[in-house]
Amino acid sequence: MEKDRNFSEWFDKVLLEAEVLDDRYTVKGFTVYRGWGYRIVRTVAHMLEEKLEETGHEPMLFPVVIPEDAFGKEAEHIKGFESEVFWITKGGDTELPRKLLLRPTSETAIYPLFKYWIRSHADLPLRMHQTCTVYRYETKATRPLFRAREFLWNEAHTAHATFEEAEQQVREGEEIYDQVFKRLGLSYLILKRPDFDKFHGAIYSIAFDAWNPDGKINQIGTVHHLGDNFSKAFELTYEDESGNQAFAYTTCYGFGMGRVLAAIVAQHGDDHGLILPPEIAPTQVVIVPIPLSGFEEKLRDYCAEVLKVLKEAGLRVFLDDGEKMRPGEKFYHWEMFGVPVRVEVGRIEVEERSVTLVRRDTLERSRVSFDVAIAHVQKLFSEILESLRRRSSRVLEESIKEAKDLEDLKKGLEERRIVRVDWCGEEACALEMKEEIGGEIRGYRYDVEEKPMGRCIICGGTATIVYASRTY
Amino acid sequence: MEKDRNFSEWFDKVLLEAEVLDDRYTVKGFTVYRGWGYRIVRTVAHMLEEKLEETGHEPMLFPVVIPEDAFGKEAEHIKGFESEVFWITKGGDTELPRKLLLRPTSETAIYPLFKYWIRSHADLPLRMHQTCTVYRYETKATRPLFRAREFLWNEAHTAHATFEEAEQQVREGEEIYDQVFKRLGLSYLILKRPDFDKFHGAIYSIAFDAWNPDGKINQIGTVHHLGDNFSKAFELTYEDESGNQAFAYTTCYGFGMGRVLAAIVAQHGDDHGLILPPEIAPTQVVIVPIPLSGFEEKLRDYCAEVLKVLKEAGLRVFLDDGEKMRPGEKFYHWEMFGVPVRVEVGRIEVEERSVTLVRRDTLERSRVSFDVAIAHVQKLFSEILESLRRRSSRVLEESIKEAKDLEDLKKGLEERRIVRVDWCGEEACALEMKEEIGGEIRGYRYDVEEKPMGRCIICGGTATIVYASRTY
Repeated sequence: MEKDRNFSEWFDKVLLEAEVLDDRYTVKGFTVYRGWGYRIVRTVAHMLEEKLEETGHEPMLFPVVIPEDAFGKEAEHIKGFESEVFWITKGGDTELPRKLLLRPTSETAIYPLFKYWIRSHADLPLRMHQTCTVYRYETKATRPLFRAREFLWNEAHTAHATFEEAEQQVREGEEIYDQVFKRLGLSYLILKRPDFDKFHGAIYSIAFDAWNPDGKINQIGTVHHLGDNFSKAFELTYEDESGNQAFAYTTCYGFGMGRVLAAIVAQHGDDHGLILPPEIAPTQVVIVPIPLSGFEEKLRDYCAEVLKVLKEAGLRVFLDDGEKMRPGEKFYHWEMFGVPVRVEVGRIEVEERSVTLVRRDTLERSRVSFDVAIAHVQKLFSEILESLRRRSSRVLEESIKEAKDLEDLKKGLEERRIVRVDWCGEEACALEMKEEIGGEIRGYRYDVEEKPMGRCIICGGTATIVYASRTY
Repeated sequence: MEKDRNFSEWFDKVLLEAEVLDDRYTVKGFTVYRGWGYRIVRTVAHMLEEKLEETGHEPMLFPVVIPEDAFGKEAEHIKGFESEVFWITKGGDTELPRKLLLRPTSETAIYPLFKYWIRSHADLPLRMHQTCTVYRYETKATRPLFRAREFLWNEAHTAHATFEEAEQQVREGEEIYDQVFKRLGLSYLILKRPDFDKFHGAIYSIAFDAWNPDGKINQIGTVHHLGDNFSKAFELTYEDESGNQAFAYTTCYGFGMGRVLAAIVAQHGDDHGLILPPEIAPTQVVIVPIPLSGFEEKLRDYCAEVLKVLKEAGLRVFLDDGEKMRPGEKFYHWEMFGVPVRVEVGRIEVEERSVTLVRRDTLERSRVSFDVAIAHVQKLFSEILESLRRRSSRVLEESIKEAKDLEDLKKGLEERRIVRVDWCGEEACALEMKEEIGGEIRGYRYDVEEKPMGRCIICGGTATIVYASRTY
């Protein structure tokens, strides 16, 4: 199954065969997380939650329903989302007196409660997060993980005394996401979205745009400065140090668990299936015995010993001593699931008291003494993550192309590249580009300052460098 | 605030002040888990998930929506639930072509996928679980945690080759729940529900009925044998060893996270607030310095040392060195939150290199040398759990009363007791009891065989002992 030839088909096949998702649920845009996939996202969620809680975000859980009146309070917000929410209109046979919608994001659920919790400057900053599912009635074509009507994410919401403190929080949010994504070996651009594409109700939005083999950008996380837009709509005030009532400043950020999982599958996987960074692999090491007639007992005992020692070292190990598959089939099976290290044990290994280690990313083999097996596995773990990270980062670098004019830009997008281009900042020029080329302007680098190459490729005005791509 | 005088008021106040929940969300029956409460249920969920996964249940996540047609397949099931589901009828401005409902439980979401995953006897048993929220449009009065329209639970679903294997699974489910509940120090009766009160679509239902201070039973978990009822409705068949198609047998069980949290609050709490079993306390030990003028630096250093040592021992410790509250206020504050052990450190402790330990359940104090502090805290943890468990179990025993006739039964329920009574098993007699007394028959002991005391108190027929109570 060739990943590069037909990414879309490869992706669907890997999701199904590696038991990541099952997309045969009969409601469009809703999908089932299976055991292997769910364990991966759960571990990613824990990594993120730990970071968020270390930095003062309290874990909470808000209701999935938002009443119509609260949802309508912030004008830009409702304008942006109203065409894509699911409405609950009935309970049993009864029409509900007040329509409820399934949260597409939780600002309008959360602020009415923040209002109770924030009285004075001493209650600020207030930071919370929740891992939950959100709902968007997508009218575009849905794709498992990339574009769904139900998706799993973590959202954080914070309130602060000043605009600057909120801005500092945006930077902290961005850093937290960056750290987690790096531990997953992912590569992406951190972009400040152009004004016309920011979060509905935000002052500005930062996004993590991960590369995807099909050239369509995969937005895996966003961080938003909301200024006092929502505070004013929800009358979120506090008593400042001089005793006056002042509006709070708020931020929010969202980490798309499904999109991140998609990026892990898409950036790291190969023709054999998943390749998982060891930290998030449900099984990190699989032991496969190579049976030899007359040698069964010795092999069994030695495998049990290897299993015990690796387990005691805190590794997630599975001994695949089943009889349904031959060893070669087991190799293929666990390669599909992306298990980082395979331990092969046969007659030679038993006699030498050694193990043969095969790393999933390169399929390189090495035979080492059992005494140093743990240290060697740990070393392979670091090398695998480092090598996944390097490879992903190289693909991103190589996929970026500069465009001097519209023709160049168009060609770049056709080649599935991410294209750097000069743009004046006017929505009219962006629209013209979009119509001509079928891709979109994603935004400016947030973490790096860049000088324009020339002038806006549409109107010739003073420009800034932006990145354009096709998108989900 | 007296728990015994007005349980309901006490309960609401503790939930709010200990930051367990905030019930001011403006949609009836929907409530907000705050940081302290959410951390507790999250830990309880992990305890359960670990047990379930050790025994072969794969973690998964199914969609929250179920299409109308799938929901209607099992006749008893839909009859039981249809009056209490929320209906999604619109996406944006569009009427949905096929109505969706919010899952009240997930059998009808899960079986269509089980059908893909189960082909032959080798695919059985199949076991999965998910921690998620479910939705019921309750028309009765709602109460936070006890009776909500959105509630957090864990549901497990399993499929087996034979009725007996499914029955064995019911026992395993029951044991898993029992073990987790015991680790939480809870007391309850394990009852087999009378036929008219079983899960809609089940062969029989087992329930964990926890005592509550107001005499209303709190059902914290249920385990159901579904026979082949759902398999037939969903055509869930497998190829058996002789090559024939046979229907699978299924079970399901639900662990109510909110109800369990309610039981922890209600059974263990006292007039000072929560009392938490140490294993699930978000903070297990709080250190409160007792300042003395001129002694600040020594105190600070010693507190930092105590904090470090306790943390390194793996305890969840918080040093409350804030200046907003005096030490006495801090004591009250952390008692409300139910932190199991308070460490007081003042001049004497610094000079002696000792710590004063106060256990939350009895408020007993002891001063011990710093060298043995960890061992002593661990000992207090065991003692606290053991004493909570004993106390809860005694309350349950003392609340059970025997009734020889209807008058007796009525009196028992008025006294908020759980009443043992002889009943013939006929629904007519149960209905007559319910009308006369306002409580209900909860069922027969599942884990203990009991002989009837006499004959049915209504019709005088041959009887079995059942338990009756008021209920949420």
